Amino acid sequence: MNTTNSDQAKLAAEAPSWTYHENALEKIFVFQTFSEAFGFITRVALLSERMDHHPEWSNIYNEVHIRLSTHTEGDITDKDIVLAHRIDAMVEEV
Amino acid sequence: MNTTNSDQAKLAAEAPSWTYHENALEKIFVFQTFSEAFGFITRVALLSERMDHHPEWSNIYNEVHIRLSTHTEGDITDKDIVLAHRIDAMVEEV
Amino acid sequence: MNTTNSDQAKLAAEAPSWTYHENALEKIFVFQTFSEAFGFITRVALLSERMDHHPEWSNIYNEVHIRLSTHTEGDITDKDIVLAHRIDAMVEEV
Amino acid sequence: MNTTNSDQAKLAAEAPSWTYHENALEKIFVFQTFSEAFGFITRVALLSERMDHHPEWSNIYNEVHIRLSTHTEGDITDKDIVLAHRIDAMVEEV
Repeated sequence: MNTTNSDQAKLAAEAPSWTYHENALEKIFVFQTFSEAFGFITRVALLSERMDHHPEWSNIYNEVHIRLSTHTEGDITDKDIVLAHRIDAMVEEV
Repeated sequence: MNTTNSDQAKLAAEAPSWTYHENALEKIFVFQTFSEAFGFITRVALLSERMDHHPEWSNIYNEVHIRLSTHTEGDITDKDIVLAHRIDAMVEEV
Repeated sequence: MNTTNSDQAKLAAEAPSWTYHENALEKIFVFQTFSEAFGFITRVALLSERMDHHPEWSNIYNEVHIRLSTHTEGDITDKDIVLAHRIDAMVEEV
Repeated sequence: MNTTNSDQAKLAAEAPSWTYHENALEKIFVFQTFSEAFGFITRVALLSERMDHHPEWSNIYNEVHIRLSTHTEGDITDKDIVLAHRIDAMVEEV
């Protein structure tokens, strides 16, 4: 029995709008324009620099794909849940 | 009679949410946080680089003060009205 | 004989520091810090918004992977070569 | 005798490339282009969000004017010296 994995599944359940996939939380954000997408990217950059916890992410025009995990652990941790919630809050406030 | 000045006052009237002051359009934008203000700043930077028409602007924490004028003319032109409208649209869409 | 492909290979040869792979120009830029990488990302965003030609790109901490192609053509065009050269110039000037 | 002021003058001397003026450290940074200036602005934004210590600053095209002080103290503190040194290091590394 792998208690670690069930711990991480429990953790992932705390960010239900994200998908837990290959040891990371993933989510795609779609905007109207590149400008809107890049405004979001900049705010996530400020947040991740403040938390000293950075995403793996990609962008094509108006789409931003974010992948959160804790490299030193090889899987998600509390830090990823906090970052996921703060990113969600950023988009909801808009 | 200075027709030029009355022309510019007429022009300024097309951006009524801005103040026409010392040959420029001015407006202060106030946000909740530095992050929100800087997301806006980045989007205005993208827009002004695209239009090749850049603002004079300042920022203190959550406040952004923008001043628009056309340097080669020493006063406002159609370009400033277009930029003013696009900046307003950016904030309204939020 | 596929003249189109040989045309594109010829085009790709004009940006020799990039790799022509799956109908796109690809290059990885490595910086010292996330801050340095994100300063570069922001400048490429300004440039691509100005050219109205946007990259597919991803970032992990200090690494930026850029992929350039022209979506309407399904392959690279002159626009991608110009963007590739301008991105290279941006890093060289540093 | 105003020991506070002499303390702050001593503090200001630790950032000799900045001017101590009206209870703040001031410096003007001049770049080649708006793009280069805005890449710098973005990096200073990341740094100030990380330190939770934000500048008063303005930008006109390729020029960035930065003013550092600690609002709660109404004058400069160690935090401003640290931020000044890190901003200088950012430009020197270029």
